[in-house]
Amino acid sequence: MGELDEVLALGWDGGAAAGPSQAGAVGVGHGHLGEGWLIGHAINGGVLMALGASAAASGLASVGHPDLLTWGAHFLSAAVAGPVEVRVEVLRVGRTVSTAEMRVVQRDEEGRAHERVRMTGTFGTLDRAEPVHRAPAPPQVPAPEDCLPATRDSSPLAAVIAVLDRLDARIDPSTAGFAMGRPSGRGVLRVWMRMRDGREPDAALLPYAVDALMPVSFDLGALGWAPTMELTGQLLGRPAPGWLLVEMTTDTVVGDLLIEDVCVWDSTGRLVARSRQLAGVRLPGN
Amino acid sequence: MGELDEVLALGWDGGAAAGPSQAGAVGVGHGHLGEGWLIGHAINGGVLMALGASAAASGLASVGHPDLLTWGAHFLSAAVAGPVEVRVEVLRVGRTVSTAEMRVVQRDEEGRAHERVRMTGTFGTLDRAEPVHRAPAPPQVPAPEDCLPATRDSSPLAAVIAVLDRLDARIDPSTAGFAMGRPSGRGVLRVWMRMRDGREPDAALLPYAVDALMPVSFDLGALGWAPTMELTGQLLGRPAPGWLLVEMTTDTVVGDLLIEDVCVWDSTGRLVARSRQLAGVRLPGN
Repeated sequence: MGELDEVLALGWDGGAAAGPSQAGAVGVGHGHLGEGWLIGHAINGGVLMALGASAAASGLASVGHPDLLTWGAHFLSAAVAGPVEVRVEVLRVGRTVSTAEMRVVQRDEEGRAHERVRMTGTFGTLDRAEPVHRAPAPPQVPAPEDCLPATRDSSPLAAVIAVLDRLDARIDPSTAGFAMGRPSGRGVLRVWMRMRDGREPDAALLPYAVDALMPVSFDLGALGWAPTMELTGQLLGRPAPGWLLVEMTTDTVVGDLLIEDVCVWDSTGRLVARSRQLAGVRLPGN
Repeated sequence: MGELDEVLALGWDGGAAAGPSQAGAVGVGHGHLGEGWLIGHAINGGVLMALGASAAASGLASVGHPDLLTWGAHFLSAAVAGPVEVRVEVLRVGRTVSTAEMRVVQRDEEGRAHERVRMTGTFGTLDRAEPVHRAPAPPQVPAPEDCLPATRDSSPLAAVIAVLDRLDARIDPSTAGFAMGRPSGRGVLRVWMRMRDGREPDAALLPYAVDALMPVSFDLGALGWAPTMELTGQLLGRPAPGWLLVEMTTDTVVGDLLIEDVCVWDSTGRLVARSRQLAGVRLPGN
């Protein structure tokens, strides 16, 4: 993910001889969160998850588990542009999978640490994710060129979403009513996405992809911020080059709590990632 | 949950004056895992999650956040019957929700700690989960007395499932083919459940309920162990007294990875909990 790649070099406590080969090992990586990842004044949460995952994956590759398979992330505070640390603690090294905890931390001017995200992930290899025995099929969506581009000049809301300069997002017209003040109320959004810099999707991009776009609550007429409490995801295959199709749905809203489900298909129609999150929501009239 | 309740007394680092009111606070609770929670030689994972959740909830009740709302759990090693510790670290105390990490740990004869589950949970109050704006409706299932009781004498497989002495489980006949060697292959199991000791369901029971029963892979003809890598869940309401209806489904199996979704409805038909897990599976013929 562009400038985030520099975080991949983890230093392990104990010096050069130490490494992630056993439970208890701790490594720390340093990176930088560019302003290009901002949505308003906060860094996109998907970027933080991709950062945490790639830091741990780079370490666990040496034990044969280079791919995130499933993870959970609890969001603790809003991240800002600037330096960032990822602390990786290996919890378990197994034969087929390993588990690590990742803490995404930023320091203030006095050097005090502020944790942004606490993640736990299980890593292995996506080679095992073959063949596809069953998976939800992608919905019928017009081709990207027949969808509505989400650009910063499209609305005052979009103007503060800096990531739209990096992300080419094309909204299925049948789910784009929210942008014209006519949300469907069904709780469905479908968006094609790819990176503007030409980067092709890979497994490392997918934790970002599941949380890169607008919340499904937009389609319920709730255009405000929908703070994510917890997000969990699964990677289900390596994406082919080309566009990703992202579908956001909700079938559960109780009080001001909403469950959002996301499916991501690659350009061949293969399901490559899923996520579910519990978020706060304020429905119109409530 | 019977004998697990004793874990509710947490001691906080720093003595009596300390408490969970700020990030960084650490409390430790002690309990005992009875043999009655065994499935084969391992304690049921749902029991461990309920234990971790109740330990943290007992602490966070003092800041107005007594209910688990959403959590993720990574399973690190199999728990055995005997003493257990839950270490709770408060990660964030907010106005409407707080977040804590829970480590469920057992010690061996030499006193070495073995972590069983690493959980992270967000807590608040389920009072906010009203009204129900939308939620999946419960499936049509015959009344419990017209379903098939799962008892230890029903099969060699069931004989080692000690929890069936505590749990009254009644399987929807239309999804019970696995027990007669005729799994449907659809990937659906529906089971009524209640505790045999007369305990009525409450929010604290729900993290157990989502993982108390047989894996959905039974209905795919995979009768072996389906090791859970990660499970995430959401609590969506306080259950009414009476039976819980638990539906387990899978729509995603890639290679030897399976996503299991669980919905739990109370006796009034209200959806009260959901979970999703990534588990390993070995399909017949693979």
